Amino acid sequence: MTMESLPGSIQELTSIQAKFCLAVERFGNLKSGVDFASHSLLVGTSGGIDSTALLIISTLLAQKSGGRVFCAHVDHGLRDSSAGDSAFVEELCAKLDVPLKSITADVKIYAEDHSLGLEEAGRVIRYGFFRKCLNELSADFLLTAHHLDDLSEDVIMRLIRGAGWPALSGMDAYDPERNLLRPLLFTRKAQLETFLNSINCPWREDESNLSDKYTRNRIRNKIMPLLLKENPNFGAGIARLKSQAELDEEFWTTEVNKVLNNVQTTENGEILLHCSILHKCHPALRLRIYKRMIEMLGAGHVLADTITLLDRAFVDQKGGTTFQFPGNKVAAIRREGIVFKVIKTIDRESGRV
Amino acid sequence: MTMESLPGSIQELTSIQAKFCLAVERFGNLKSGVDFASHSLLVGTSGGIDSTALLIISTLLAQKSGGRVFCAHVDHGLRDSSAGDSAFVEELCAKLDVPLKSITADVKIYAEDHSLGLEEAGRVIRYGFFRKCLNELSADFLLTAHHLDDLSEDVIMRLIRGAGWPALSGMDAYDPERNLLRPLLFTRKAQLETFLNSINCPWREDESNLSDKYTRNRIRNKIMPLLLKENPNFGAGIARLKSQAELDEEFWTTEVNKVLNNVQTTENGEILLHCSILHKCHPALRLRIYKRMIEMLGAGHVLADTITLLDRAFVDQKGGTTFQFPGNKVAAIRREGIVFKVIKTIDRESGRV
Repeated sequence: MTMESLPGSIQELTSIQAKFCLAVERFGNLKSGVDFASHSLLVGTSGGIDSTALLIISTLLAQKSGGRVFCAHVDHGLRDSSAGDSAFVEELCAKLDVPLKSITADVKIYAEDHSLGLEEAGRVIRYGFFRKCLNELSADFLLTAHHLDDLSEDVIMRLIRGAGWPALSGMDAYDPERNLLRPLLFTRKAQLETFLNSINCPWREDESNLSDKYTRNRIRNKIMPLLLKENPNFGAGIARLKSQAELDEEFWTTEVNKVLNNVQTTENGEILLHCSILHKCHPALRLRIYKRMIEMLGAGHVLADTITLLDRAFVDQKGGTTFQFPGNKVAAIRREGIVFKVIKTIDRESGRV
Repeated sequence: MTMESLPGSIQELTSIQAKFCLAVERFGNLKSGVDFASHSLLVGTSGGIDSTALLIISTLLAQKSGGRVFCAHVDHGLRDSSAGDSAFVEELCAKLDVPLKSITADVKIYAEDHSLGLEEAGRVIRYGFFRKCLNELSADFLLTAHHLDDLSEDVIMRLIRGAGWPALSGMDAYDPERNLLRPLLFTRKAQLETFLNSINCPWREDESNLSDKYTRNRIRNKIMPLLLKENPNFGAGIARLKSQAELDEEFWTTEVNKVLNNVQTTENGEILLHCSILHKCHPALRLRIYKRMIEMLGAGHVLADTITLLDRAFVDQKGGTTFQFPGNKVAAIRREGIVFKVIKTIDRESGRV
């Protein structure tokens, strides 16, 4: 590992390198709606190729635009090499003059305690730590290094799991609720590798990426190469799909909101969607309204098939029919429309609700 | 090949077999909007498992509902076994008392003459013949045997080719323009095999399905098994995606039509989309309006990226900018809106348009 000197400003880059960084900035600005590099940025960094590139690019852009960069790193302690990864991130941050927040987590114990898979446990710990750092530093954005290859894999993953539209199009470039920005989402991994090589910056290899223990890795190592063989430009189609999905997502959100503004909540917490409103909506909109109503009631996955049955019962005016959703949530067909509510659980000892 | 006796009516089937056939009828009715088996049906049949099952199911349903069945078969002459396939279809039709229309085509010569791949040439010949039969017989529906496994493959194929939504969801169960109905589209191939085995009906194996010469076969033989390993119920998600896409397709078609009703056509064949109309439309709708406008002008693929650039130029009010589409079609930004037209080609000798 040699990390002699890293570029300290965009001016030190070649024209090609500079253009590459500015394209990342333009994408991030378009998605976040602001000049993100002029803000306070927390970059999640593992020491791998993607996040090493993101940390360097962010530092260069912030230097140009007057922003600040912090780094957050989690040592998952799952691999022999993880201490080496942490040392690498420490050295990288020192070279870049970026303040580092890091923890060592015991993912195995957390996974056992919370009955989670290792991958999911790692994600929960990681994003919990990122959230904590974001608050402590009063940083504006959490940046993660997900790129176009990740997005392509995510689309395949969601297709396998039976996602609908627009969720099928994969993770979002910007999630305002979590202040999460993914400025590399339309950048190919190969471009990141080219960039790091061109500035002579090393990175850490994550050998667990090669294991076929996780679905994600099997998609990456077995399915993606077959898709890329059919169309080496596969990622371009995925990026286009994502862009279309963003527009559709915004469109449907607006349409659903218009309807929800006219919804009545009763004293006992029931929400009534009046049939006079629902009959004016196209079924494509109605299904999305139901989904949002049930999500609004609280946690619990909304099953697409149940939503479809609910709409059929509404159209057939099957008054009295009730549909249950995970999380004690129900939707009941009434004469006046559809009522959504959470059923309170019964206290077994007192028999009271 | 033994084809002793085939069931002549639904009443001769077991309860499970009858339910299976009635589910196919219900699906076909739902998609076509009519009791399709009471009509005159032309079934495209190769002698393979899918179309053999469809021909038998169609015959049973038509017998019940008062419809008529005809069979159309094309001997592509590409494989040694194709004469055997034709003999099988002939015997099958004789057993079922179904009139057969068949031709022997020279796909190789057709492909060479029209600069097409063999697969595409076969498709053109096949559907051309089906269309001719449909007209001669005055049949109401062309039925093809595409099933849920085909639909899944089609989604992967379209994902590889970079399709947008809702086209990504694969072939339609019903295409009213071509009177084409696919009653098996939500039925798994394994169910068809079970059905044929249960009535002791043989079928012809198409060994060319095993060849990895065609993209379609590589998807079927290499990619699909990996997806099914991750989720054996992969097809259920695809069927749900298709159902959602049908609603979205209908929704967007309705919205686009509302706008197109307000479009002005000038004397010289230009179509003007006035900016006062366009500004009221969400970009998700505008892109779909452009696409339809350009499709309406004539043949030629509409590139999604050019459509996006067109909308950006419209939003940025870049008057004077012109975008070209395959088939001599152009869209030009003007002060009053966007003008769509076909550029007439210039006669080189006379210099006249």
